[in-house]
Amino acid sequence: MRYVARNRPFVIRNGAQSWKARKRWNAPYLTNVMAGQNVNVAITPHGNADSVVSLPNGGSLFVKPYETEQPFETVIQAIQKQELEKDYDGPTRYAQTQNDNLRNEYETLFSDVPSSIPFARIALEKDPDAINFWLGNSHSVTALHKDNYENIYVQILGQKIFVLLPPIEAPCVNEKAVLAATYGLKSDVVTSSDNSGGQELRKDDLHIRIDDPEEYVPFATFDPDNASENINAYSHLSQPLRVTLNEGDMLYLPALWYHKVSQNCNEEGICCAVNYWYDLDFSGGFWSMANFARSVGVLSMAAVAEKS
Amino acid sequence: MRYVARNRPFVIRNGAQSWKARKRWNAPYLTNVMAGQNVNVAITPHGNADSVVSLPNGGSLFVKPYETEQPFETVIQAIQKQELEKDYDGPTRYAQTQNDNLRNEYETLFSDVPSSIPFARIALEKDPDAINFWLGNSHSVTALHKDNYENIYVQILGQKIFVLLPPIEAPCVNEKAVLAATYGLKSDVVTSSDNSGGQELRKDDLHIRIDDPEEYVPFATFDPDNASENINAYSHLSQPLRVTLNEGDMLYLPALWYHKVSQNCNEEGICCAVNYWYDLDFSGGFWSMANFARSVGVLSMAAVAEKS
Repeated sequence: MRYVARNRPFVIRNGAQSWKARKRWNAPYLTNVMAGQNVNVAITPHGNADSVVSLPNGGSLFVKPYETEQPFETVIQAIQKQELEKDYDGPTRYAQTQNDNLRNEYETLFSDVPSSIPFARIALEKDPDAINFWLGNSHSVTALHKDNYENIYVQILGQKIFVLLPPIEAPCVNEKAVLAATYGLKSDVVTSSDNSGGQELRKDDLHIRIDDPEEYVPFATFDPDNASENINAYSHLSQPLRVTLNEGDMLYLPALWYHKVSQNCNEEGICCAVNYWYDLDFSGGFWSMANFARSVGVLSMAAVAEKS
Repeated sequence: MRYVARNRPFVIRNGAQSWKARKRWNAPYLTNVMAGQNVNVAITPHGNADSVVSLPNGGSLFVKPYETEQPFETVIQAIQKQELEKDYDGPTRYAQTQNDNLRNEYETLFSDVPSSIPFARIALEKDPDAINFWLGNSHSVTALHKDNYENIYVQILGQKIFVLLPPIEAPCVNEKAVLAATYGLKSDVVTSSDNSGGQELRKDDLHIRIDDPEEYVPFATFDPDNASENINAYSHLSQPLRVTLNEGDMLYLPALWYHKVSQNCNEEGICCAVNYWYDLDFSGGFWSMANFARSVGVLSMAAVAEKS
């Protein structure tokens, strides 16, 4: 409760060690429990779901992944193959729908995790809005962004590396409005009728299409792991925190903290996590102050651009 | 704890009703317990301690009260006399030292109040830094200001009327750097040797002296009860809360909230309160965000002034 009040992250090392998910989950168990079920999978050429792609002409696009349904078995095998086999040259898959998937398409796995985190339920006075299952490999990196949620992130298999920036650093992240696009299959790509042939999809079967109608989305272009590019006048003031979650660790990631996430696999070639999203508290001064700081940053950048 | 987290005020009606102070305190009791003791008293011509005085030449000064030691009996009698007798024409007295006075010069009254407020001690994880005793009448008004403390304010006798503005409204209060000054006695004023003659002090025995060395203090010049003067471009956005504390009521006044305080007396002609100051939590984003909002307001006003 005190950490929520301070909007300050913390890690409980081994906090989920007693969960059934920690004791049971591995690639064969997941494959068995999810047998015969299709799941949504995000497919990108370079593991760059929801990130900015620079174009040859100097412009840039915010590109969402190609999303499709595939048998879970196909997805996990492709994820493992890419991680473990050197000659794999296909696109990157990431099961990362953040739509309460663990209570829906992954429902058969849901009984292996708590339906709520007791300390979070008490501190936040609510049950989770969404519980999400994540399955990927080291090729996927989630670009710096923030969520309007209080987040309890639980690492089950493999490692996640978080780079964290507090909301007051909003002016440092060089937020820009970027034209939105989505990866799609080229029109001549034929997928097999049972969709399992997706495993053989090649990187260059995907191309970028600008969304119709055109939409510009606000995006944090600063990369705390590459502090010489995409910076503005405030970026050098950022003091990122770096946190590695090991198997069984729980992270409280407070609302509106910017986070970039990369991952390492277990020996099976998978990285698997579960997270709980709780609605943030819009009362009090936190929401208005954080957005004020962010807006001042954006307006200040616009004023500098106008002068130059 | 949740209200502290949200930096949001609340009132507990009759929350101090069981205190000895509520049961025992009245003018004769206070006079009796404090018999023979000198106390610090703030003396001003118009009840304007720690506020801005406009000068005939158009300038303004932040003027602190004339402070002196007087027998408690002298102080309370003058306070009552001013309130109850129509022909009183003396200056205004306010016992308002905020230096933990209830554990020092008013120590003989201290056993009538709790040494800490249990819910505040638990929520804030600390004991109070200062416990203050306040004694005045309806002539004293405390101008809009903020404190770097969490505040539990308890009304014992009479009424206090708080006008409250949250920290995000810092840009609305038209903060300016004002030259500091202090009321002093004119050099030809003779006070009686036992100091009890202070009761006969006249308003025009006091004059304003600019502090030496000269010092400019930041001061919120906006008066939420007079929204047509001393306003800036943001003042009209302010949405003040108004709270009346009756005898026995407790107010949680969160850190950094601007407050203007006026008061009404009981039938004895006194207004008496006790407050507990707890150090604010400088960790987390609250302090930095609140000061960022305040600084942007000040800088923005400076930029506007430069243009015009």
